[in-house]
Amino acid sequence: MKSAYLKPDPWCLIEEDFSADRVMSSESLFSLGNGAMGQRANFEEYYSGPTFQGSYIAGVYYPDKTKVGWWKNGYPEYFAKVINAPNWIGIDLKVNGEVVDLNKVNVIAFRRVLNMKSGVYERSFEVVLADGLQLKIQAKRFLMLDPDQMGAIRYEVTPLSDQAQVDISPYIDAAIKNKDSNWDDPFWETLEVVTDQNRAFITSKTLKTGFDICTYMQARLWLNGQEQDLNGMAQSGPEKLALSHKCVVAKGQTLRLEKLGGYTVGLYQDADALIPKAQELIDFGLAMGFDGLLNRQKESWAKIWERADITIEGDVLAQQAIRFNIFQLNQTYSGKDPRLNIGPKGFTGEKYGGSTYWDTEAYCLPFYMATKHQEVGRNLLTYRYKHLDRAIENAAKLGFSGGAALYPMVTMNGEECHNEWEITFEEIHRNGAIAYAIFNYERYTADESYMGEMGLEVLIGIARFWAQRATFSSAKNQYVILGVTGPNEYENNINNNFYTNFMARWCLNYTHDMVKRTALQSPGDHGRILEKTHLGSDELSHWIDVANNMYLPYDQTLGVYLQQDGFLDKELTPVAQLPQSQRPINQHWSWDRILRSVYIKQADVLQGFYFFEDQFTPEELAKHFDFYEPFTVHESSLSPCVHSIQAARLGRMDQAYDFYLRTARLDLDDYNKEVHEGCHITSMAGTWMSIVEGFGGMRIKEGLLHFSPKIPDQWTSYRFKINFRGSVLAVHVGQDATTVSLAEGPGCSVVVDQVTVQLTA
Amino acid sequence: MKSAYLKPDPWCLIEEDFSADRVMSSESLFSLGNGAMGQRANFEEYYSGPTFQGSYIAGVYYPDKTKVGWWKNGYPEYFAKVINAPNWIGIDLKVNGEVVDLNKVNVIAFRRVLNMKSGVYERSFEVVLADGLQLKIQAKRFLMLDPDQMGAIRYEVTPLSDQAQVDISPYIDAAIKNKDSNWDDPFWETLEVVTDQNRAFITSKTLKTGFDICTYMQARLWLNGQEQDLNGMAQSGPEKLALSHKCVVAKGQTLRLEKLGGYTVGLYQDADALIPKAQELIDFGLAMGFDGLLNRQKESWAKIWERADITIEGDVLAQQAIRFNIFQLNQTYSGKDPRLNIGPKGFTGEKYGGSTYWDTEAYCLPFYMATKHQEVGRNLLTYRYKHLDRAIENAAKLGFSGGAALYPMVTMNGEECHNEWEITFEEIHRNGAIAYAIFNYERYTADESYMGEMGLEVLIGIARFWAQRATFSSAKNQYVILGVTGPNEYENNINNNFYTNFMARWCLNYTHDMVKRTALQSPGDHGRILEKTHLGSDELSHWIDVANNMYLPYDQTLGVYLQQDGFLDKELTPVAQLPQSQRPINQHWSWDRILRSVYIKQADVLQGFYFFEDQFTPEELAKHFDFYEPFTVHESSLSPCVHSIQAARLGRMDQAYDFYLRTARLDLDDYNKEVHEGCHITSMAGTWMSIVEGFGGMRIKEGLLHFSPKIPDQWTSYRFKINFRGSVLAVHVGQDATTVSLAEGPGCSVVVDQVTVQLTA
Repeated sequence: MKSAYLKPDPWCLIEEDFSADRVMSSESLFSLGNGAMGQRANFEEYYSGPTFQGSYIAGVYYPDKTKVGWWKNGYPEYFAKVINAPNWIGIDLKVNGEVVDLNKVNVIAFRRVLNMKSGVYERSFEVVLADGLQLKIQAKRFLMLDPDQMGAIRYEVTPLSDQAQVDISPYIDAAIKNKDSNWDDPFWETLEVVTDQNRAFITSKTLKTGFDICTYMQARLWLNGQEQDLNGMAQSGPEKLALSHKCVVAKGQTLRLEKLGGYTVGLYQDADALIPKAQELIDFGLAMGFDGLLNRQKESWAKIWERADITIEGDVLAQQAIRFNIFQLNQTYSGKDPRLNIGPKGFTGEKYGGSTYWDTEAYCLPFYMATKHQEVGRNLLTYRYKHLDRAIENAAKLGFSGGAALYPMVTMNGEECHNEWEITFEEIHRNGAIAYAIFNYERYTADESYMGEMGLEVLIGIARFWAQRATFSSAKNQYVILGVTGPNEYENNINNNFYTNFMARWCLNYTHDMVKRTALQSPGDHGRILEKTHLGSDELSHWIDVANNMYLPYDQTLGVYLQQDGFLDKELTPVAQLPQSQRPINQHWSWDRILRSVYIKQADVLQGFYFFEDQFTPEELAKHFDFYEPFTVHESSLSPCVHSIQAARLGRMDQAYDFYLRTARLDLDDYNKEVHEGCHITSMAGTWMSIVEGFGGMRIKEGLLHFSPKIPDQWTSYRFKINFRGSVLAVHVGQDATTVSLAEGPGCSVVVDQVTVQLTA
Repeated sequence: MKSAYLKPDPWCLIEEDFSADRVMSSESLFSLGNGAMGQRANFEEYYSGPTFQGSYIAGVYYPDKTKVGWWKNGYPEYFAKVINAPNWIGIDLKVNGEVVDLNKVNVIAFRRVLNMKSGVYERSFEVVLADGLQLKIQAKRFLMLDPDQMGAIRYEVTPLSDQAQVDISPYIDAAIKNKDSNWDDPFWETLEVVTDQNRAFITSKTLKTGFDICTYMQARLWLNGQEQDLNGMAQSGPEKLALSHKCVVAKGQTLRLEKLGGYTVGLYQDADALIPKAQELIDFGLAMGFDGLLNRQKESWAKIWERADITIEGDVLAQQAIRFNIFQLNQTYSGKDPRLNIGPKGFTGEKYGGSTYWDTEAYCLPFYMATKHQEVGRNLLTYRYKHLDRAIENAAKLGFSGGAALYPMVTMNGEECHNEWEITFEEIHRNGAIAYAIFNYERYTADESYMGEMGLEVLIGIARFWAQRATFSSAKNQYVILGVTGPNEYENNINNNFYTNFMARWCLNYTHDMVKRTALQSPGDHGRILEKTHLGSDELSHWIDVANNMYLPYDQTLGVYLQQDGFLDKELTPVAQLPQSQRPINQHWSWDRILRSVYIKQADVLQGFYFFEDQFTPEELAKHFDFYEPFTVHESSLSPCVHSIQAARLGRMDQAYDFYLRTARLDLDDYNKEVHEGCHITSMAGTWMSIVEGFGGMRIKEGLLHFSPKIPDQWTSYRFKINFRGSVLAVHVGQDATTVSLAEGPGCSVVVDQVTVQLTA
């Protein structure tokens, strides 16, 4: 099933030999990003084969008009999506009059390497042109982490068999279209095209949203070490600026181009400061020089790895995979700006529009909390706080009132973007994950200030939603939640999804408790929030009434909570008995067949057991895992990680390892045959959890870190670093759990077979 | 709520005074049709105000590319729709140089009348032009029932206040667009533009489907009775041909134009015979003369009314309404061609694409069977027989095998057109109505030949579908049908919809019985069909096993069958307690809110009680009616009729009458504020049923017609005619049920208070 062509390596992705079939997949896998912008690993030079050109700027989106077959009341008018931005990496290259195009020339050697330790992408290849000339090209590219509005490219051309006439032309091009567009609308308007010797600037504005950006470049050229004049910048297309240079390069000599480029963005500068800022960045880049920038880049990444690295000994595939996941998460989101968030494909593709899903709270938050300063976690929470008014408006559209908030399923600016009723209106459990994230943030950081400042208001909006959304069933004499889609999206419009009902109950209780705690700890905040939200004691006691009387579907005979009412009416045939020809079912079965089948897309009841592990015994976990996992097809990238953690907890290490590889190498080995569309960024945080919570057995309770490590047979040992209350803590776990050592913990106690880290206050 | 502007009249629709706001509504209400073509009541002359131009040809459709937000496996690529055809009614008119445009001139009198007795639409109006000239226009138009490829227009212009320069120009125009188009694609290609003195012909072909048509016209002109020369035909636009004439008309004199026109269609002639056929029709029309054609038209309609009329004395609104319903049903479908069917909007609009829905079998069939020769009912069944292979393909796409057939929800040529998973894949009860129609046809006609010739194959395909679609629930130890949408489309993806399960059970038993009966009665057909379908005894006994063990949700405490599993978990607040501001809920509530509410769009459990009335006692009917009706919002046009019939059966005559008016005057009084989009044609058959089965209490059992009439207090008496086994039977029902007389029955026996008609063999 999987399609693996990358070489095993602990720090690098390495592709050898050229295959046009793999170009789009590698464009995804070798993507670069720095949190502020990112790009697929497109070639600098022209390529006529199948390619998916993509360059994106964080937070710069366009409200694409909704496309829908049959409109339903409440659907959003727009799907806001991060859009393809102008191209600044392009270099046109002709040698002896022939366009160097990997799709046309004879490729005799090809190698590309993404060095994750330093965040540098390199490509070298040797080709034979139509006239027999043998030519070598080497390209090196990186996006600076700091400053994050600039990248650099070094591009070297060496004729190997004879002298050659080389015609090289670095450019920027603002005539760009989105691959993912509902109505083929143009998204950008080009405002100004400015040249300044070997510098070029094009300012553009997004239509409707009015984001201003400046795409810029600067280039220099050396022949055999001697700097050459580049001809003055010229407009070579309606929205394209290019430098060009022609020269004869002797056999074995190298023509080297160095190009600085990137975007300055209206999110950070005034529109009229965009070009001056770009000039400043170029000046800075020239002063540092390419190698200086490269060193700075290495240092920046070293700081990230210092906190985030996980080393696995004895298993290079597992090692490569976890680093790839950590690397991509860091490329996607730096945590500096609470206006930004984590799109499911990051900067590696356009699917899902770069928007925010519940993935952020349910999967990504622990990774960023554990590997970065707590401010990053707080920024992720603040993102939702800033959208609270929109969430209240969103709930009002669906008939809720009095400040009830329903966060959108998919969003860019707080407004709902998605338009399938069964998701948009019914996959309401997302509201629970957003509340849970506040709890989780406090658990990780012990920062209780967020609650009074922002968190409690969010919780109140969410609790109000649940209290209204639950309705009273006279037949059951309990509160029920009808017509939902749970985490298992292979069920729609079901009644009493265990996960949703359990989560709703927890939200109501937790919010109630937090209101009480805030009254004691932070009476000023409490008073302000009560006044703002008009929250009274009647409403608080109603929440407790709903929570206390929340119905949870349970089967006495089996002793398991049911995923939803009526679950046992399905044909209970395990996945193991499904013919391989029917898998994945989402590509072979019509939707009704999937819905009435027992098959589970991703953890649903078990997702509840994951979040609320302490509320269930290990025996209960085992019983539910044994009941549900055999029906689970894991066709969501978010599925294997939760199961890996639970299998590890149950001591089923082979199963835990299989799930780990499936989540960790999902993109590297292209299990789902879709990596050409981009990587599964948010699930990468699940990979991290599989290691840390699964094999490491890390749990956080009442300010204590607990580890109960159990690692797969394939591994000699592993070591990871996490950030806890601002300190970096490295945990080394050998195959024998008793050998655990805590290298840098600021204070700890060790118990045989289990480790608890007690941090100093 | 309703918006009524038509004058009460037993035979006519009459609109007086001009209001631009009503133009689009009247265009729907005053529509003309003859089964082969139809047109909205657009003005002949130019109109610059809001208008919805529509002219349609039965069976001429275009596969519009599907529009969908999120694609699901199994969705159809196209939505085949009846499309707007070229305009043949147009007459450009200038007087004293001013375009006569009802939106611009000062209208001092306006009246339009649709005479349903004769199928003639007339319009007369007096206007004052900008220069002060007072002018009178009279227009009369009809579409011939025979021959059905031609219509005629008489258009008269009379200056009232002074002489006037009149510039008149009848035309045909093939440059036409569909209002309802997913991607603004062109649907037609113009092939040839031909003129022949005062005759014009434009041949066109639909793109993709390749239907050939010829739009034609011929025109003559008289001034004060003297025929005038019309200038030769000239092309006045890229796809437009026009005649033109200028003259001075004296005060009080009349300029009269007579125009013949219509379409000849490739469904009935070869492409190269289209123009000759049109010439022949013109010759015929000229030979008959306008008044001759008009008389022929009146005679044709008289024959229809002879069989189909219902007279209601004492209640002119009820009388007008039932005639309007019968008139529209006859305009929409003549029953001559088994390739045609009944679109929900007929020829009055484009919504629903003119395609076939379960409405045909569930609502329309009895009307056509009762008022026309039995061949018409047979043609409607044959339509589905011809689509059986496609229904088997359709089921295969959804994972069913071995000849299981799922008829499409919406279709033109047998292929599914609709693309909402909850409808397309899940509203499978339509299959039941198609089987029930075969049973119903035999009941009405006693024609058992259809079964062996065609019907049984359809039933076998349908039974196979149900046997596979039902799955065995170990928990219930019964067969269940999961994930369906019932007739109440305000529920989606529910489990064990009573109506669906009951219908599935009936289909399995009925098909089993028909296989056995055919073996006895028609062994030749039986052998042929068994060989063709590979039907064996194991499969037959499996059907009986599924039928015998079919689960039907039932509540012991209430003593009612439940619409679906979990129905009683809903908040059981009756519609009466819903604020008027929330009604209709489909315009005020988001879809999730509708779904989780108790509110019922149209008869669902009660639809089952309607089809299978004999299987329930009147007490059971009362109990279920009393339970479900209070939750029913009747937001489908198909809802009130069934409830009217059941209320009448329960002797609740006021309620029955209210429901009757709601169904009968739905469009005339525009209850749903949507008549501008077209009329609700298929529900008009439900109106007929309300009268005949509701107030007349007609039932057919074992070759006997039973009547147990109960009529509303508002009525003095009513009389209707039905066609039963080829004989026309008129039933007169007075307010006192004992006065029933059977005027023309070929043989009958009368019982006090109840009438049973025993027809001679």
